[in-house]
Amino acid sequence: MKYTLSVLVENQPGVLSKVAGLFSRRGFNIDSLAVGVTEDPKISRMTIVVNGDEHIVEQVEKQLNKVIPVIKVKTLDTAGDFLSCELNLIKVLANTPQRPEIMQIADLFDARVIDVSPTTMTLRFAGTPAKGENLMALLQPYGVREVVRTGMIAIEKGASVIRK
Amino acid sequence: MKYTLSVLVENQPGVLSKVAGLFSRRGFNIDSLAVGVTEDPKISRMTIVVNGDEHIVEQVEKQLNKVIPVIKVKTLDTAGDFLSCELNLIKVLANTPQRPEIMQIADLFDARVIDVSPTTMTLRFAGTPAKGENLMALLQPYGVREVVRTGMIAIEKGASVIRK
Repeated sequence: MKYTLSVLVENQPGVLSKVAGLFSRRGFNIDSLAVGVTEDPKISRMTIVVNGDEHIVEQVEKQLNKVIPVIKVKTLDTAGDFLSCELNLIKVLANTPQRPEIMQIADLFDARVIDVSPTTMTLRFAGTPAKGENLMALLQPYGVREVVRTGMIAIEKGASVIRK
Repeated sequence: MKYTLSVLVENQPGVLSKVAGLFSRRGFNIDSLAVGVTEDPKISRMTIVVNGDEHIVEQVEKQLNKVIPVIKVKTLDTAGDFLSCELNLIKVLANTPQRPEIMQIADLFDARVIDVSPTTMTLRFAGTPAKGENLMALLQPYGVREVVRTGMIAIEKGASVIRK
């Protein structure tokens, strides 16, 4: 089972290393991780996706709360109250005959064509990881040359926010 | 000066911890970091933005190349040959009278309204960090309740790719 943790941390050197170390010492593989500053530039938010059982995630949550520069940890229920999405950049082989087909696929997935070369097109897609997988499946037959993805991020539905 | 590093690594526990440790031991603060699997599920790509001078970045690049599960490191020139973008989720205060104004701002920035509550709206924006800052400046007067961002990712213009 995959779990998504939202971790508010102080924006200072060494925090990422401490958090990553905590996972690796327990042999947990981080599926994806995204870090960026929040509305307060002194505070960063990490969104971490891990594979594990409930017991393991509880343990990690407790341990994270002990790491000094961690301000708040919350496990997100992305099936329920949270909206999740990620960003993908996909470079796909496309000569003149394939271009209209790929433009149509981009359109269907609300993706943008951000670059074109004589032999390739580059798409930018923002959406749920599941929708991203579907897009990849449609582009695969053309020849996917490169994929760059951010980790997943998530935000609570409605007016609630995660704060310290 | 900000530098962007693209690092291909083997997708295994402990790699993130090693890479993050390398930065923190030298006191370099990572501005943003995004990790996700590539077109090959055994390989992940980290995009790391750091503040530093050219000498420091050269040092980091050399050190990263010595960390075993690192496959390739490349410093990206995001002013030139690379297209960079990030994903922001922004929850902003909005009652009935503010809704049309915020929808118009979203439209101007090619952002999507992904959630609405009686008192808030949540926007999803994908684009360059600079454009993201402009969007934030326009939303600030309404009251930004929460911002969740991925780190920046980047892809080479044209047909070239970064591979092992």
